[in-house]
Amino acid sequence: MSNKPKTAITPTREENYPEWYQQVIKAADLAESSPVRGCMVIKPWGYAIWENIQKELDRRFKATGHKNAYFPLFIPMRYLQKEADHVDGFAKECAVVTHSRLEADEKGQLQPAGELDEPLIVRPTSETIIGELFAKWVQSYRDLPLLINQWANVVRWEMRTRLFLRTAEFLWQEGHTVHATEEDAMKETLQMLNIYADFSEKYLAMPVVTGEKTEAERFPGAESTFSIEAMMQDKKALQAGTSHFLGQNFAKSSSIKFLNKDSQEEYAWTTSWGVSTRLVGGLIMTHSDDDGLVLPPAIAPAHVVILPITPKDETRQAVLDYCADLKKALEGQNYLGDPVRVELDDRDIRGGEKTWGWIKKGVPIRVEVGPRDMEKDSVFYGRRDKAAKDKISQELEAFVAGIEGLLGSIQETLLLKAKAFQKANTQTLESKEAFEAYFKSEDAGFASAGFCLDPQLEDQIAKEYKVTVRCVPTKTVNETAPCIFTGQAGKRVIFARSY
Amino acid sequence: MSNKPKTAITPTREENYPEWYQQVIKAADLAESSPVRGCMVIKPWGYAIWENIQKELDRRFKATGHKNAYFPLFIPMRYLQKEADHVDGFAKECAVVTHSRLEADEKGQLQPAGELDEPLIVRPTSETIIGELFAKWVQSYRDLPLLINQWANVVRWEMRTRLFLRTAEFLWQEGHTVHATEEDAMKETLQMLNIYADFSEKYLAMPVVTGEKTEAERFPGAESTFSIEAMMQDKKALQAGTSHFLGQNFAKSSSIKFLNKDSQEEYAWTTSWGVSTRLVGGLIMTHSDDDGLVLPPAIAPAHVVILPITPKDETRQAVLDYCADLKKALEGQNYLGDPVRVELDDRDIRGGEKTWGWIKKGVPIRVEVGPRDMEKDSVFYGRRDKAAKDKISQELEAFVAGIEGLLGSIQETLLLKAKAFQKANTQTLESKEAFEAYFKSEDAGFASAGFCLDPQLEDQIAKEYKVTVRCVPTKTVNETAPCIFTGQAGKRVIFARSY
Repeated sequence: MSNKPKTAITPTREENYPEWYQQVIKAADLAESSPVRGCMVIKPWGYAIWENIQKELDRRFKATGHKNAYFPLFIPMRYLQKEADHVDGFAKECAVVTHSRLEADEKGQLQPAGELDEPLIVRPTSETIIGELFAKWVQSYRDLPLLINQWANVVRWEMRTRLFLRTAEFLWQEGHTVHATEEDAMKETLQMLNIYADFSEKYLAMPVVTGEKTEAERFPGAESTFSIEAMMQDKKALQAGTSHFLGQNFAKSSSIKFLNKDSQEEYAWTTSWGVSTRLVGGLIMTHSDDDGLVLPPAIAPAHVVILPITPKDETRQAVLDYCADLKKALEGQNYLGDPVRVELDDRDIRGGEKTWGWIKKGVPIRVEVGPRDMEKDSVFYGRRDKAAKDKISQELEAFVAGIEGLLGSIQETLLLKAKAFQKANTQTLESKEAFEAYFKSEDAGFASAGFCLDPQLEDQIAKEYKVTVRCVPTKTVNETAPCIFTGQAGKRVIFARSY
Repeated sequence: MSNKPKTAITPTREENYPEWYQQVIKAADLAESSPVRGCMVIKPWGYAIWENIQKELDRRFKATGHKNAYFPLFIPMRYLQKEADHVDGFAKECAVVTHSRLEADEKGQLQPAGELDEPLIVRPTSETIIGELFAKWVQSYRDLPLLINQWANVVRWEMRTRLFLRTAEFLWQEGHTVHATEEDAMKETLQMLNIYADFSEKYLAMPVVTGEKTEAERFPGAESTFSIEAMMQDKKALQAGTSHFLGQNFAKSSSIKFLNKDSQEEYAWTTSWGVSTRLVGGLIMTHSDDDGLVLPPAIAPAHVVILPITPKDETRQAVLDYCADLKKALEGQNYLGDPVRVELDDRDIRGGEKTWGWIKKGVPIRVEVGPRDMEKDSVFYGRRDKAAKDKISQELEAFVAGIEGLLGSIQETLLLKAKAFQKANTQTLESKEAFEAYFKSEDAGFASAGFCLDPQLEDQIAKEYKVTVRCVPTKTVNETAPCIFTGQAGKRVIFARSY
């Protein structure tokens, strides 16, 4: 640490973005790979971010009438057979449970035993099993809408994994709802999409484009899939949440029927929607810099860290007491309706190591308090959204009284910065030539362009340019735009490279 | 429904206790069996109880310095081999993942494919995998204590399952901590035991006996296992939570070592502790009656349900408005530091069906509001801990102002009743003859008796009387008592039949 490099994270974003991402996670102690291939361990600092995400989303789900429930981890293999019947060359990457016991053989080596009559699949998503149950729960129009959410772990046997962005096991929520009419189901689908978008902006300070996916990117079985798409600092798109209008497809395959007011039996209309621990990856890649993680206050496990400076033994206790009082005073203030979250770091380690540790962890405000600050009844603080050396002295009472505003200002700064970045890296393209020129550069961002939505052409573009249609943005969905490739009538879409 | 039986639940507790339990769950819509053998579906009302349990326990864990994290669902089979090496005739009921893909064969039938090099076990508990990671996290005495908790699902392939009490998959929390000294680890073990006991009493209104398990009932690998034992209304014991002092056993098998202040390498001391959705089963069996679920207010998803009585169309809207105002007024009051939770049931169904629906769901307070109550500016309410017909009229303002006290009084009544029941059904026995006479009856409760703690004798007693040693109670652990079977020196223990 004696030759501290210019940046706390090596390599920098510019030098090697994917490796920078891994190093930010490591330096902030958010997560790590586990001995089980593709499964990550979410460490306390990373998990606390996920808990804050859960808390606010859960509040919003409940405020819109949803209730939480819990469904089995396992899905009988035959439930997936239905899907296989429709999909050519079906191959599903998933964890298959085939035995129910371990037994030691004559050499004392454990072996799987108790073979199951039917293999069970560890849920990759729960539409099939939940559909089976909803068919029993829904009988009459009086049972509708049925608005259920589940917080759970799911498993998809991914080959190439990356912490938070793509892991074999991940944590998520999956909403599953049933409605009497097409209109209600579509309203729900869009309501949840908007909750995701608003949450991303307000809490993660991560601006997103909302829109509908093309046929190629649609969830299997859905009539329409909507998503929120965020721009990372390498200008690639991250699909950060999806909301599916399932029409009557799942209702038909699961027999979810109800008696309407005229005592006629009808198939119901369903939706599903989800976000996952991938949001944490999006958060990291939206705000962090070459000194490590940068956390928006709304989602930070700690808003403020207090760092006592105790150069002399004789003032040590007084400084520590002053810091403890400051902690209490700050905790008496609110931010977003909850008490301000404060860490007091009185570990007996070198000051520089301590300060840089918290910078790398992304805490929005660092407060240094030494004997001189105490004498002046003031604090000396730095904001994570400014340079590490850019610190300010302020009278203690004013600092405490202004903490809510200060946190709000950091939150706003991060959002504005991310918005400006997205805007600066989104171009409207009017021709195929402009498209080719734009995406020739590794540095290309989002392109807004007219597209005829032909699936074959879309596939060809993906192969040729490694660029996909992220969505037909909600904002311009009612406009037409000539396709820049074919000249045919089309819609304005967002093209981008993506995670 | 025209011939409503005397009780809302059939059979009654006396007629058939196990079946009564199932019917209470069904009537309250708490949970149901799923198409996957042994796995339950936790429905919204049941899940909301679990959420309330989680919220308060999580608060207490954090207040005592623990942090949440998340570890992989899967455990490599070789991690369990170590255990097998120590246990004769090792056989572990667990879900074994052997394949990573489903593929359609030539007939289009799905088959497991992509066989894994090493089978993975769906975690039955996480000591082995967490130990592996802790060995990396712990290097120095500065890293200790390491206080981690995980909220997760676990799977044990149980043969005979019962909703909440014993299911193949269940939800739980597992705390895992590492300490520098034996003393610290033992202090932690007992601290968590006491948190469980205090939470059970204060929130679940479920009095428990805390104590240490005998060798036979100890968690494999633990040096001592402590538990909380509650008495159900059939007088059987339910082990409702455990806290294990693991000594250095797991530290040794997982190589959790640290450098102490003198730069000497030492093995650390570890603990683990957990409670599960079984607590919901305990809650049901402690308080519910022949009319269904009875919920202690501290844990009830709704504290109050408002039932508008609208006999005439012309006053209907006024009554509904009055009820909506009442809801708002009640929600402005606090109970245990949180806003009072209120449901307004304005469904258009028969009043009797509606009222009995909420009785069976166990809501602590039902408020009926009709045109006459409105005229008098009053409410008409019933408490779930009293007879259904035993209702009181009260002036609205006084009712609202007194809601915290009313809920507190119901909570207290339930606890006192459960305590009295436990006391009335616990006997001190001084001889083998008294023991035999006591447990001859199907109706026997807890017996406090001296026991020499001989494992063989314990096993014999279990076989002969179907009675086990629940624990050596903390309260009398320092006393000696002669064994009622052998006359040798022993400890006072609690004998009981159990779940």
